[in-house]
Amino acid sequence: MYSFKNDYSEGAHPSVIKKLTQTNLVQAEGYGEDVYCEAAAQLIKQKIGYEDIDVHFMSGGTQTNLTVISAFLRPHEAVLSAATGHIEEHETGAIEATGHKIITIETDDGKLSPELIQPKLDFHDGEHMVRPRLVYISNATELGTTYSKAEIAALSAYCKQNGLLFFLDGARIGSAIAARGGELTLADVCELTDVFYIGGTKNGALLGEALVIKRQELKSDFRYYMKQKGGLLAKGRVLGLQFLALFEDDIYFELAAHANAMADILRQGVKQAGFTLLAESDSNLLFPILPNAIVEKLEENYGFLVIAPMDEKASAIRLVTSWATGEKDACAFVDALKEYAEPQ
Amino acid sequence: MYSFKNDYSEGAHPSVIKKLTQTNLVQAEGYGEDVYCEAAAQLIKQKIGYEDIDVHFMSGGTQTNLTVISAFLRPHEAVLSAATGHIEEHETGAIEATGHKIITIETDDGKLSPELIQPKLDFHDGEHMVRPRLVYISNATELGTTYSKAEIAALSAYCKQNGLLFFLDGARIGSAIAARGGELTLADVCELTDVFYIGGTKNGALLGEALVIKRQELKSDFRYYMKQKGGLLAKGRVLGLQFLALFEDDIYFELAAHANAMADILRQGVKQAGFTLLAESDSNLLFPILPNAIVEKLEENYGFLVIAPMDEKASAIRLVTSWATGEKDACAFVDALKEYAEPQ
Amino acid sequence: MYSFKNDYSEGAHPSVIKKLTQTNLVQAEGYGEDVYCEAAAQLIKQKIGYEDIDVHFMSGGTQTNLTVISAFLRPHEAVLSAATGHIEEHETGAIEATGHKIITIETDDGKLSPELIQPKLDFHDGEHMVRPRLVYISNATELGTTYSKAEIAALSAYCKQNGLLFFLDGARIGSAIAARGGELTLADVCELTDVFYIGGTKNGALLGEALVIKRQELKSDFRYYMKQKGGLLAKGRVLGLQFLALFEDDIYFELAAHANAMADILRQGVKQAGFTLLAESDSNLLFPILPNAIVEKLEENYGFLVIAPMDEKASAIRLVTSWATGEKDACAFVDALKEYAEPQ
Amino acid sequence: MYSFKNDYSEGAHPSVIKKLTQTNLVQAEGYGEDVYCEAAAQLIKQKIGYEDIDVHFMSGGTQTNLTVISAFLRPHEAVLSAATGHIEEHETGAIEATGHKIITIETDDGKLSPELIQPKLDFHDGEHMVRPRLVYISNATELGTTYSKAEIAALSAYCKQNGLLFFLDGARIGSAIAARGGELTLADVCELTDVFYIGGTKNGALLGEALVIKRQELKSDFRYYMKQKGGLLAKGRVLGLQFLALFEDDIYFELAAHANAMADILRQGVKQAGFTLLAESDSNLLFPILPNAIVEKLEENYGFLVIAPMDEKASAIRLVTSWATGEKDACAFVDALKEYAEPQ
Repeated sequence: MYSFKNDYSEGAHPSVIKKLTQTNLVQAEGYGEDVYCEAAAQLIKQKIGYEDIDVHFMSGGTQTNLTVISAFLRPHEAVLSAATGHIEEHETGAIEATGHKIITIETDDGKLSPELIQPKLDFHDGEHMVRPRLVYISNATELGTTYSKAEIAALSAYCKQNGLLFFLDGARIGSAIAARGGELTLADVCELTDVFYIGGTKNGALLGEALVIKRQELKSDFRYYMKQKGGLLAKGRVLGLQFLALFEDDIYFELAAHANAMADILRQGVKQAGFTLLAESDSNLLFPILPNAIVEKLEENYGFLVIAPMDEKASAIRLVTSWATGEKDACAFVDALKEYAEPQ
Repeated sequence: MYSFKNDYSEGAHPSVIKKLTQTNLVQAEGYGEDVYCEAAAQLIKQKIGYEDIDVHFMSGGTQTNLTVISAFLRPHEAVLSAATGHIEEHETGAIEATGHKIITIETDDGKLSPELIQPKLDFHDGEHMVRPRLVYISNATELGTTYSKAEIAALSAYCKQNGLLFFLDGARIGSAIAARGGELTLADVCELTDVFYIGGTKNGALLGEALVIKRQELKSDFRYYMKQKGGLLAKGRVLGLQFLALFEDDIYFELAAHANAMADILRQGVKQAGFTLLAESDSNLLFPILPNAIVEKLEENYGFLVIAPMDEKASAIRLVTSWATGEKDACAFVDALKEYAEPQ
Repeated sequence: MYSFKNDYSEGAHPSVIKKLTQTNLVQAEGYGEDVYCEAAAQLIKQKIGYEDIDVHFMSGGTQTNLTVISAFLRPHEAVLSAATGHIEEHETGAIEATGHKIITIETDDGKLSPELIQPKLDFHDGEHMVRPRLVYISNATELGTTYSKAEIAALSAYCKQNGLLFFLDGARIGSAIAARGGELTLADVCELTDVFYIGGTKNGALLGEALVIKRQELKSDFRYYMKQKGGLLAKGRVLGLQFLALFEDDIYFELAAHANAMADILRQGVKQAGFTLLAESDSNLLFPILPNAIVEKLEENYGFLVIAPMDEKASAIRLVTSWATGEKDACAFVDALKEYAEPQ
Repeated sequence: MYSFKNDYSEGAHPSVIKKLTQTNLVQAEGYGEDVYCEAAAQLIKQKIGYEDIDVHFMSGGTQTNLTVISAFLRPHEAVLSAATGHIEEHETGAIEATGHKIITIETDDGKLSPELIQPKLDFHDGEHMVRPRLVYISNATELGTTYSKAEIAALSAYCKQNGLLFFLDGARIGSAIAARGGELTLADVCELTDVFYIGGTKNGALLGEALVIKRQELKSDFRYYMKQKGGLLAKGRVLGLQFLALFEDDIYFELAAHANAMADILRQGVKQAGFTLLAESDSNLLFPILPNAIVEKLEENYGFLVIAPMDEKASAIRLVTSWATGEKDACAFVDALKEYAEPQ
């Protein structure tokens, strides 16, 4: 049984384990004030090419999303998110639990645009309604699609014009950037957003997201929020060390590119076998639509999620690849799919 | 420079690193539903001698405290805690941020008792006040003191009689149990409380606390709360694996006993050098009261916290030992102290 | 300038003022524990025909909605509401500010049904999502439509089958019941819901809503929640007295019937003048669609809200009548509308 | 049975009832945007002598306290309050329910001072603790004591120096100002604080507090917070009208002076009868310490609270007077007390 269920099925990339092991008995300060976190923050600033940013290391995506959003909004302010956004669908009301409404926007492909946001701004008017204040996007999205630089730039300009904060959830930013083949860089993302994070958990770390705060007035007191929400690890070094490992050897984007390449194998295979995909994803997530009979056969040897029935005979499934996905496993899946797809 | 600042200055016990390394590339389910978490939960149940308990693995103490307390209280219910309790003093209002008041109780030694709690129950009466509903204690306490089995039993009986939930913060439960030399066991703690946790971060793990819920009506839906508060790690295996390592080889209490032994060396040394301690701690924390001149000299070679001035010439400092503290480092500290203490 | 903006443009029905005046200097207990609140609660129980219910008097709709919902839900539980529901659109995120997500459901007419709710139950599954737990409806709805007894009964049965609480916002329950001409009674509403309220503010009171809690396990400690949310007035008598006035003389439904009759005059007039309505409302709210030129002329002499443009030339406006609306004012509006509508 | 339980036992001062009655059928805008609220705000500005302040009318003290505090603090910021403060002891955790910790300060007389606050500022340091940010005082205090202008000025200067917001709960500000005999004015209070309110409920209104926001950066969006917390009444006119009545005829301070005079009669009587008071109050609250036997006799004809046993034989009781307290009732109480006090 091989799993394509998600990109966190294995432990960490070996270089991460190595770094943890090598430094294990060195004494360091607690709560993220250690030399490793400091070095990792410096390295990230260098890779991005920005000095005047704050970098914080947090344990996971939901933790980061709820801490950021509740830190930056006043009580009557709300978040704008795609209806498929992680904060809306898969965080058990974490944002609302901090007191804030999510204004959801229906999309075809999980991606927001100024045109989709504008009607929500028009609708919210006056003190009987929340005030839309922060635009949340994820890149790659929950549907596996990615934003072009131009699309992010358009959102960025729109947010500036409308007094909105712009927050990019980068749990899968490695895959998103790798998918764009150089068109989009970390520097671009930093330039165009107010705050974003570089996901570690889904790209080679045991756990950890590197949060980057660029906008000046959002920086103050952020460690208070981290602590209050339970996000300040005593051995914060564990997070810093991992990002040090991932960026020191420049392997972060290599891992992402590998995950994407494995997804491409699957994607090509699905198409060659004559099937379609739910959305035109280009990252490490894909959603093939397959006959239920084939889904059942595949389930004998492969782990994946069945997302939704498309009609009586077919369902959309979710396949996810990662830095750890073996090429032979991806090819074997395709072979099996083709075999099942052939007329008997 | 050697640090006695805390018990989370190093990484993990080597057996933890070994376990993470050995299993690193095995695929596992996400979000704590993996075989390692399952095995660790089973092992902990076995060590405690209870089958009918729920075990959840969480990333840190503040996270655990806020999740437990907000999960178990209705909005108008409050926590009773020593004024020195971690939730009161060192969690940046994490409990209040979930909506609940902490009713604080002054103590001499960081320990609650029925006698200290009763006046608070008497005072709170009717709907213009919060309702006291949960007693929070930490063992070992923030002052390094520990509860005897009889003291915990008295609190347990009192809580039952008064309809109070009883929650024990066991961030340093290893040291507390080890300090009692067999008088108190994990089974006792489980028997006498409704919910408690076994701290990993401060006793050999990179991160992680094992939460044990015994009381039946508190069990339902707990994973929802973990997720909502950002406490459900995608690679939950990381937590399960570490507790597996710590309890598989029965090293958990060995590590705690070592930490205590190192603290004893320091404690004896302080007394032999002619100084007193702020509280009669018996765990891995101690608070010597030292002349400021000596504090300054010690600071040249040792890291520790200066807690509070006692008078114009002396201060209380905090020394903490751990599984990783070297016996030679403890002895060297004592030697230095004695040297500085000698009349010149 | 005559206003059809809302049903709270005037003060209170004269019998309310009379009751406040007559009792003004009598001493009474504070915080709703006075003889007037007691008598009003008894009278309401009698009118409903239920003894085993709790009646609480609160100051307004948003206050009541947020107190009820936050009292009855655990942190991970969510509300199901029409997308047009008052709690979703017009309470500035009051529900989310207490920590709970609202799951919104698109409707044609502001009314929920089991068929509309079911897909939301199907979708929410497992601890990565909130748990739908309470169905919120308003009757009359924000679109002026009302529920039949059969429709409420269907929702009631559905909620029971699915473990959902059922809460009816009765800010305009007078108008809704009056509109149904005897088909629906307060007793029916009490029978079929777990908790509901009888709106005073929009039907003759200065302020006040009478909350009725029927479901046994929801009753305990409710006054704690009222106090905590700022909803327990020191001179609670003010609320009790008003409901006493409204129900003692049985004028509550007379006032609602009058408001409906005035709305009927407007509705007929709109149709006779050749215009249509946005929704088929039968309560004291109506939403005519009128040419913009006519809207502008009407605005010279009448106050009302312009809700939304329908196309380039026409807009939907909102007209609201109340116990205080004069028949001659309603007729004058219709005359003006007909005059403007005539081809010149 | 005559009640000295509180200052909200009766309805409203007749001039308030008269104003409500006279304007009852006039149409007005909803939600506090009516001409009466506007006029009342103007009148209050004029009485205070400040133009550049925002005035909002709210329904009660707890509602005002929780709305103000949650509006002005960021999530990690905390309130400093006397341990006897209303927000700490008598609001069912309303402040904590909005997410904020109250740092309590023990006092002799319910009054804060820079000297009492300083140790709390010293103690709170760094991101593991909340940040003290707002000083809350009530004047008169819950013990009936009042602040001198100099005392408020000292707190004001201290707050400015330390970056603290300064909020004065004026539920009983009428009595407090009247007690100081011209030494303290509304203008002083406005000058020296950032935000305060003029209590209506306890000084002649049916309900209502007039909130005054002076500090510029606290003004924005306050109506959003009022709405979100359920504090924006549909018929906001009810509040504006009452303050118009109380300030138009300049009776606000007359009513307070009357209440104080009645309290003086009681206070003198208590002393003449040979008894002492718990605190040296000078407002409309007093706390005589009486033998239990006398307390029991008084309870036959008078309503009041028994606050606390002082020893086995005596208790402190609470007597409260108001604008409605009759001089003959106050004298009769004193006579009874003297009678019971005489040796038989």
